[in-house]
Amino acid sequence: MSSGVKPMNVLAKLRNSRVKIRLKNNAEYSGVIVSCDTYMNLLLDDAEEYRDGEPKVNYGRIFIRGSNILYISFEA
Amino acid sequence: MSSGVKPMNVLAKLRNSRVKIRLKNNAEYSGVIVSCDTYMNLLLDDAEEYRDGEPKVNYGRIFIRGSNILYISFEA
Amino acid sequence: MSSGVKPMNVLAKLRNSRVKIRLKNNAEYSGVIVSCDTYMNLLLDDAEEYRDGEPKVNYGRIFIRGSNILYISFEA
Amino acid sequence: MSSGVKPMNVLAKLRNSRVKIRLKNNAEYSGVIVSCDTYMNLLLDDAEEYRDGEPKVNYGRIFIRGSNILYISFEA
Amino acid sequence: MSSGVKPMNVLAKLRNSRVKIRLKNNAEYSGVIVSCDTYMNLLLDDAEEYRDGEPKVNYGRIFIRGSNILYISFEA
Amino acid sequence: MSSGVKPMNVLAKLRNSRVKIRLKNNAEYSGVIVSCDTYMNLLLDDAEEYRDGEPKVNYGRIFIRGSNILYISFEA
Amino acid sequence: MSSGVKPMNVLAKLRNSRVKIRLKNNAEYSGVIVSCDTYMNLLLDDAEEYRDGEPKVNYGRIFIRGSNILYISFEA
Repeated sequence: MSSGVKPMNVLAKLRNSRVKIRLKNNAEYSGVIVSCDTYMNLLLDDAEEYRDGEPKVNYGRIFIRGSNILYISFEA
Repeated sequence: MSSGVKPMNVLAKLRNSRVKIRLKNNAEYSGVIVSCDTYMNLLLDDAEEYRDGEPKVNYGRIFIRGSNILYISFEA
Repeated sequence: MSSGVKPMNVLAKLRNSRVKIRLKNNAEYSGVIVSCDTYMNLLLDDAEEYRDGEPKVNYGRIFIRGSNILYISFEA
Repeated sequence: MSSGVKPMNVLAKLRNSRVKIRLKNNAEYSGVIVSCDTYMNLLLDDAEEYRDGEPKVNYGRIFIRGSNILYISFEA
Repeated sequence: MSSGVKPMNVLAKLRNSRVKIRLKNNAEYSGVIVSCDTYMNLLLDDAEEYRDGEPKVNYGRIFIRGSNILYISFEA
Repeated sequence: MSSGVKPMNVLAKLRNSRVKIRLKNNAEYSGVIVSCDTYMNLLLDDAEEYRDGEPKVNYGRIFIRGSNILYISFEA
Repeated sequence: MSSGVKPMNVLAKLRNSRVKIRLKNNAEYSGVIVSCDTYMNLLLDDAEEYRDGEPKVNYGRIFIRGSNILYISFEA
């Protein structure tokens, strides 16, 4: 909680972890991070789109453009 | 799933693969990637526009400006 | 389909070809490309604005600011 | 039509010509170009604002910020 | 009308002149330019906010962030 | 009124002055400037949020991201 | 109140402090800052999403993209 590790470095360590992502258009996605880069572009596996909190669409692999991300939540 | 290949490199390898693309205006497109660049600009062949999940408009070839892309989904 | 020519280079080769362009405000235009640049700014001749798929307004020549372009469709 | 003169250079040659400009907020203006720069900032004389295709407001001189421009139409 | 002085230079010469400014949120302001910079940031004196063409709110001095400006109109 | 001091320099001199700020989402804030930087980021003390011209929410200290600012008004 | 410490430096000192954050989509979050960077990206612990002033969703850890932040409020 007080480690002070830079946010982008924490993101880089989330590989293979399941995260939830909200985009600027308020759509929400869940998936396992395959990789990310310094633009916050994300490659997710086993991705699902949520609507009103319920999973609705399953994707194989999904590439999310980092500039559209509002936030990424995950287990600490 | 744990290869850690950078997202843009994965995108570059999708040439000749069919992908689905959602843009910031929430329009959805399907097509075969002819080429892409580091701005995420995409050239698609055999492109279709989807509305409410149904293909509606067929395009020959389509050039999509990368800055408008929300995400790209594809088979792993 | 598998040439891998970069998207912007393909765009540069469309001079004298008729294309359809959709802008971020969802307006649609058709015209013959006179020239383009690396910002995707386009100069079109014999341009028409479409509404609901029908041509509505004729322009002489039109300069389109590249940053507003969603996509450009054309015959392969 | 096939000169290939870069779009910005064509714009620079429109000094003293009357053009129509549509901005991102969909407002439309007509005026005579006094000068422009590489950001597409425009100085117009004898400018009018159009609403629903009709001239509504007259301005003396108007400075338009280039980043808001959708397109500029003019006689070839 | 044909001087070709660059738009930003014309703006810099408007010090002590009254201008009208429209922002991206379509609000309109009138004021006397105290100073401006290359980002189009403006410092205005004796500023008024207009609604539906009528002055509504008086400000002492107002600093307007240039990136929000649609256009600036003024007497030639 | 004719000093010509650059807008950002005027902003820097407003430390300890009470200002009103309008953001791009049209929310309005009042507060005393603690400090600012060249991105127009502001730290305000004794900040209040206004709705329909009335103070509604009191904040201790508030950090406002400069890129969201429409304008800052203050006593000359 | 008159220290003049730059806004970003004040933000950097808020580690382990609870803050409230409003994003451009007007969503509001509360959480304890784990770390931040110069893009204003924030890592929050014990994060909650607020709707109409009431906590609604609990997150473990949340990464907020700095470019979406309107403001951050906190105890002085």
